[in-house]
Amino acid sequence: MKVGVIYGSTRENGNTELLSEEVVKNLPDVIRMDLKRYHYHDIIDQRHDKNGFSPVDDEYDQLIDQIIDCEVLIFATPIYWYGMSSVMKRFIDRWSQTVRDEKYPDFKEQMSQKQAYIIAVGGDEPRVKGLPLVQQFKYICEFIGLNYKGYLLGEGGKPGEILSDKTAIEDAHKLGEWIKG
Amino acid sequence: MKVGVIYGSTRENGNTELLSEEVVKNLPDVIRMDLKRYHYHDIIDQRHDKNGFSPVDDEYDQLIDQIIDCEVLIFATPIYWYGMSSVMKRFIDRWSQTVRDEKYPDFKEQMSQKQAYIIAVGGDEPRVKGLPLVQQFKYICEFIGLNYKGYLLGEGGKPGEILSDKTAIEDAHKLGEWIKG
Amino acid sequence: MKVGVIYGSTRENGNTELLSEEVVKNLPDVIRMDLKRYHYHDIIDQRHDKNGFSPVDDEYDQLIDQIIDCEVLIFATPIYWYGMSSVMKRFIDRWSQTVRDEKYPDFKEQMSQKQAYIIAVGGDEPRVKGLPLVQQFKYICEFIGLNYKGYLLGEGGKPGEILSDKTAIEDAHKLGEWIKG
Amino acid sequence: MKVGVIYGSTRENGNTELLSEEVVKNLPDVIRMDLKRYHYHDIIDQRHDKNGFSPVDDEYDQLIDQIIDCEVLIFATPIYWYGMSSVMKRFIDRWSQTVRDEKYPDFKEQMSQKQAYIIAVGGDEPRVKGLPLVQQFKYICEFIGLNYKGYLLGEGGKPGEILSDKTAIEDAHKLGEWIKG
Repeated sequence: MKVGVIYGSTRENGNTELLSEEVVKNLPDVIRMDLKRYHYHDIIDQRHDKNGFSPVDDEYDQLIDQIIDCEVLIFATPIYWYGMSSVMKRFIDRWSQTVRDEKYPDFKEQMSQKQAYIIAVGGDEPRVKGLPLVQQFKYICEFIGLNYKGYLLGEGGKPGEILSDKTAIEDAHKLGEWIKG
Repeated sequence: MKVGVIYGSTRENGNTELLSEEVVKNLPDVIRMDLKRYHYHDIIDQRHDKNGFSPVDDEYDQLIDQIIDCEVLIFATPIYWYGMSSVMKRFIDRWSQTVRDEKYPDFKEQMSQKQAYIIAVGGDEPRVKGLPLVQQFKYICEFIGLNYKGYLLGEGGKPGEILSDKTAIEDAHKLGEWIKG
Repeated sequence: MKVGVIYGSTRENGNTELLSEEVVKNLPDVIRMDLKRYHYHDIIDQRHDKNGFSPVDDEYDQLIDQIIDCEVLIFATPIYWYGMSSVMKRFIDRWSQTVRDEKYPDFKEQMSQKQAYIIAVGGDEPRVKGLPLVQQFKYICEFIGLNYKGYLLGEGGKPGEILSDKTAIEDAHKLGEWIKG
Repeated sequence: MKVGVIYGSTRENGNTELLSEEVVKNLPDVIRMDLKRYHYHDIIDQRHDKNGFSPVDDEYDQLIDQIIDCEVLIFATPIYWYGMSSVMKRFIDRWSQTVRDEKYPDFKEQMSQKQAYIIAVGGDEPRVKGLPLVQQFKYICEFIGLNYKGYLLGEGGKPGEILSDKTAIEDAHKLGEWIKG
């Protein structure tokens, strides 16, 4: 059961990363994609252009290649301004191109064989004000075919603060056990 | 009453732009900020770094300077993946730096004197599946101090399709009248 | 095109009723079900009882008989405490019994041939704080099979106040035209 | 720390009750209000009547008297049709009368000294489809002054099924410990 963690933070060792590592620390086969280390552009919406999308020369496909290999995907994003980070959103926005990319003819079908979780950490009432993000993520999964499996919300702002959110940490351990199966 | 329209689309003359122009076409004093024409980076979350945020050399401040000048702000974004575009989100994420930027010592207070609207157009049931975005935008306004005034959701995917959404077009005209006062 | 308006208010000539009448006033075939004039009990959840639901002797079936006859259903409720009124909720809760009632063997299928709208009026930011009700109503429609067609939110508290919500009144007229087809 | 559990189910020993009892079983001072055992009417919205609300002769005030005595309130409702039960809603709707009732001149202030939780159990994706209920409950607390403290969502339909939702049961135990302090 290969698990891919997709990090959307822009900080080193941020709270989202700390919480996510509590989930995966005992899993045997985990890859991490730290989005901020990859160079990829915003989508240019050419869905309706006569010639479709122009090829983009960046590192985006490296991310897709890694994702395709996983059975479980964990989208781990800090809650910035009550939503996922721009780094994470930019990655997901590009899927609109991938679903029309002949290099990935079965992208949706491959996604439909994966399980997806979202982990999100924020400083301002994340368990309520993070709910629009959960709902958005559910819609994203439904559209692309991912099997939405759940969410984990934690509270933290300052470095390391998430470790004081005992509920989130325990939920993380349970989620890890659950994924381990 | 100076109105600033902040465009988050990545397409020329997209549906979001068409709808927004129906709102502002009879207003005397409108400026448009087409985010895709500006070069600005993702936030690097240095809120908790000893020395705070490092200066960023890009065109972001040009946007802030224009915004500060407006009394009404219209955030106009296509609905990509059930949220605002990455282009729009990247702009908003950077506000975390601006609220700590000595070049803009009164940013929050200045924002608290502005009215804010969101216009969002999507192809997949935007009037329901766009609601998490509305809620997120409400939270954003509350945090930064903007006076949230309302939303306008329209349906459209293909070029020009929004023009068939009679309800949205009429709502746009009413909103324009409303802003005109 | 027979239209049924289901009123959930507990006040005579309340704002919700005023707004809804703006929708239907030019429609040729409208019936009104004023829930407060009917006597019907809370659901008793006997879904899992060996003998299923016990027959209930009240006026609930009169409502169902009228609904079944309509092609369009408008659920018109004041927003009490950020949700539908208890009067409306009690009516909908009873559907759990009707879907298992041999007197209505095709209830879900009959519902699946109807269009459904929700009209809701409240005094405290209904266009944002009424959104959970819209989402709930969408889920209700999906479960019972009703074709969810849209919502109309208006602002008003004091008697007649909705008439000052020009946007809602105009939306009501448009909705009426739309239903008229 | 007196804890009041307000039950909104219409079934004996339903899943919501089972889950809630896991929360409170080790707490020293708990009272239970099983709403279905009380007789109380729908609100009649007389907020704007010249003489205000007419006195209502039912058992509603018995509930308020018990609530006032508690420091923690747990609203425990099955998720019926993606919302609280009509039994629970009818109780809350009546608060509109209580806030204007001279018998309870300090109702809002007394509420503002209490902590509030919601526990909700449903059979159809409660952790996502129960979120509008959470948001509604948050708004309710903000309006009446209750200190919203959190939610616990569990999955279950058939009798006893909640006991298989290990996550919910563990969350219940943690919540109990948390309340115990």
